[in-house]
Amino acid sequence: MLNQEAYELFEHTCDYAENFGLRLHSVAGGRLLDAGVQTPGSLDAGLLLARLCMGDQADIAIVPADPDRFVTSNHVHVRTDAPLWACLGAQYAGWPVQTDDFFAMGSGPMRLLRGREAALKDLGLAEEGPIAVGVLESDKLPGESVFAHIAQECGIQPDGVHLAIAPSHSIAGGTQVVARSIETAMHKLHELKFDVRSIVSATGTAPLPPPSKPGDMVSGIGRTNDAMLYGANVTLWAEADDQAIESVIEQVPSSSSGDYGRPFAQIFKGYEYDFYKVDPMLFSPARVTIHGLRSGRTWIAGRFNTDVLRESFLG
Amino acid sequence: MLNQEAYELFEHTCDYAENFGLRLHSVAGGRLLDAGVQTPGSLDAGLLLARLCMGDQADIAIVPADPDRFVTSNHVHVRTDAPLWACLGAQYAGWPVQTDDFFAMGSGPMRLLRGREAALKDLGLAEEGPIAVGVLESDKLPGESVFAHIAQECGIQPDGVHLAIAPSHSIAGGTQVVARSIETAMHKLHELKFDVRSIVSATGTAPLPPPSKPGDMVSGIGRTNDAMLYGANVTLWAEADDQAIESVIEQVPSSSSGDYGRPFAQIFKGYEYDFYKVDPMLFSPARVTIHGLRSGRTWIAGRFNTDVLRESFLG
Amino acid sequence: MLNQEAYELFEHTCDYAENFGLRLHSVAGGRLLDAGVQTPGSLDAGLLLARLCMGDQADIAIVPADPDRFVTSNHVHVRTDAPLWACLGAQYAGWPVQTDDFFAMGSGPMRLLRGREAALKDLGLAEEGPIAVGVLESDKLPGESVFAHIAQECGIQPDGVHLAIAPSHSIAGGTQVVARSIETAMHKLHELKFDVRSIVSATGTAPLPPPSKPGDMVSGIGRTNDAMLYGANVTLWAEADDQAIESVIEQVPSSSSGDYGRPFAQIFKGYEYDFYKVDPMLFSPARVTIHGLRSGRTWIAGRFNTDVLRESFLG
Repeated sequence: MLNQEAYELFEHTCDYAENFGLRLHSVAGGRLLDAGVQTPGSLDAGLLLARLCMGDQADIAIVPADPDRFVTSNHVHVRTDAPLWACLGAQYAGWPVQTDDFFAMGSGPMRLLRGREAALKDLGLAEEGPIAVGVLESDKLPGESVFAHIAQECGIQPDGVHLAIAPSHSIAGGTQVVARSIETAMHKLHELKFDVRSIVSATGTAPLPPPSKPGDMVSGIGRTNDAMLYGANVTLWAEADDQAIESVIEQVPSSSSGDYGRPFAQIFKGYEYDFYKVDPMLFSPARVTIHGLRSGRTWIAGRFNTDVLRESFLG
Repeated sequence: MLNQEAYELFEHTCDYAENFGLRLHSVAGGRLLDAGVQTPGSLDAGLLLARLCMGDQADIAIVPADPDRFVTSNHVHVRTDAPLWACLGAQYAGWPVQTDDFFAMGSGPMRLLRGREAALKDLGLAEEGPIAVGVLESDKLPGESVFAHIAQECGIQPDGVHLAIAPSHSIAGGTQVVARSIETAMHKLHELKFDVRSIVSATGTAPLPPPSKPGDMVSGIGRTNDAMLYGANVTLWAEADDQAIESVIEQVPSSSSGDYGRPFAQIFKGYEYDFYKVDPMLFSPARVTIHGLRSGRTWIAGRFNTDVLRESFLG
Repeated sequence: MLNQEAYELFEHTCDYAENFGLRLHSVAGGRLLDAGVQTPGSLDAGLLLARLCMGDQADIAIVPADPDRFVTSNHVHVRTDAPLWACLGAQYAGWPVQTDDFFAMGSGPMRLLRGREAALKDLGLAEEGPIAVGVLESDKLPGESVFAHIAQECGIQPDGVHLAIAPSHSIAGGTQVVARSIETAMHKLHELKFDVRSIVSATGTAPLPPPSKPGDMVSGIGRTNDAMLYGANVTLWAEADDQAIESVIEQVPSSSSGDYGRPFAQIFKGYEYDFYKVDPMLFSPARVTIHGLRSGRTWIAGRFNTDVLRESFLG
């Protein structure tokens, strides 16, 4: 019950909201934790959002990174023994939350209540219950109509809706986005038709990029994507046959994509900011290790790209 | 009271056993946590076993490792201010638990109740009490006779016996074994007649190797040993005279052994799988630092060996 | 309320004092935690002192360091979202605690109650309340007169005074001193007239140096300073204008000082052990990154100096 576990973390946090640079709002009987729209937010708030996003099924920390390789001096490190539910069931930003006057990509365990996404159906990932917990990426706060919409989609009352929000250019927003290293690998593997239910444990790191200028969405998206494409390192433990791993391993890291090699903001601009023209196979970690539990063999593919990280983070 | 502290951790864990990929059994009134025999186990379960093994006297975490140096991307990092009791009193796998139909190496604070090992007697390490906590390395679950045997050896009732178990090729088993970096250094120093009671604090890291193929004991033992011999890095703070440290330091790391330089599985095979033919001085970390608290001097010996790690982990 | 938060941590710790290698004394109705004068102390005690010092407003851990670069194998890693209050308000060792028969540099949130330091007044950092928590660096335990003096300076009763103490050459003392990487950067920036109130979040690491010989104050001071000057790496998130950052960034790291380049003990000796002759601009981290939140730009200055670390730590 990821919504329940995330809810307990959410409630616990409310008591300390100010310490995290958070502001707590009541909307339509539900709750809204602002972690970067009208508040400064914080690194701690970013870790909190990441934990909520994963239904509190992961150990997430900020640890030192080698600045010569990763440009920034901090890594977001994630470890989970429930990668399927935590990453694809909850963390993946697969719900475009849209009303007449609001739009944000939605992630978190609330997606399990809605259950409309193809990947969730394919994988049999669903939950029921009166509480929904989600994370929104936006620089505008959602109002009552958004809470009503989410409640309706989840089949619950608006007072059961618990949202946390931060824009991607904020400290908290950037932190929670680059906590998606494992999720990015899991999602790519699912796209490659690998049976991701076989992945039982995972670790991942990605460099924590500099926050972008407020309002500069392209730079914000660019840097967090570059942290993944050129700096993330993911290890997966898979209860799978060698052949299944071998047939996908070279395609898992970002370097397998024809779009690989430049900062994401440049790639995006080259496609005239049309997301759907970007090669979907680009979205993956720089480096991936898969431990095959049946044979004891290990596969490693991909590499870090310090030059592109430097251009993206310092350019 | 390490058995008591480990017991509290054990009891606390039982409430969340399923979240850890564990299965809880009741045997002869005692308790058995299966972390990898009939269950998948997990990285979290591996950390739990490591903590139980050390009587909950250490801070143990999985942290990122540089894959260019250590081949795998994860380190098991251990820190303790009670290295004598936690490592030699509890964690060392010094009890061959044997009955008519079962054999496993036993570790954990239960050894302090049994008190038969020479090293424990030499060092005055012993405990009394009604509760024993131990960790077994095996791919078979122990039955009532094993619980009765352990109870008898510890001088307690079978319902006081608390065991956790995982095979070394499992995720949890491999994790708890490579959490023994400090213990390996302490044990080697004791063999070298260094007064290990002078060691007041310690940190250690070792790469987390790929799990081996189920049933392939040699590869399982090989990789976890190689993680120590060629990848572990231990720092010890010692209240000792310079001369005492100087007289042993060059012999502490694995490179001081004539058997050093090849994957352990090859060494083992070379001795026709007879453990007792392997140079006992081989079993030590790749690299050791000793801070002498009396003089303020520091000694460093040994080195990492990426080539052998690569051959062992990826071969 | 940093004194209150540190007090809760202090009280909680008292229950486990022995596990930390601490000894608890009652003095003049107040409390004294000895972490290294008449006790061995520990790494855990060092982390505790560091947390008390920062009013429990930071996440502090010992993590692995690359020994090829940092000579020692351990980093003290600090992360805070309250760098102004935690570092300059509390952690800075700005109170020379002096009575007829005692002297120690005092740090911790008790400085906020005393409120006499110029930097605290400049920055409007102050607290009121009946409890003071402080950390002293000394190899002598303070008596009743010291507690009375601190109480008077803080405007409280002596039974509200809570002190922890360790000499800098001890394990705990060295650990808490090198937890000051962020503070060192904040203090230097304040000296450079940068508005440190703009810094909203920070991370920092510094190598944990070998403890010095008991009584050898110069070596003790030398190594902990060298850990900062030649090994510390700090990242600051600043809500500041580019021009404000640009005008100071090159002066922030230690390498901007004319005294840079030799172990601190040698510099100190060169000035005949007169602290006031050392260039005050020397005291800063080896490497500093500032993320400008308004523009999304990042500045990096300074570099690690492994040669000096080796000379200092192993010389």
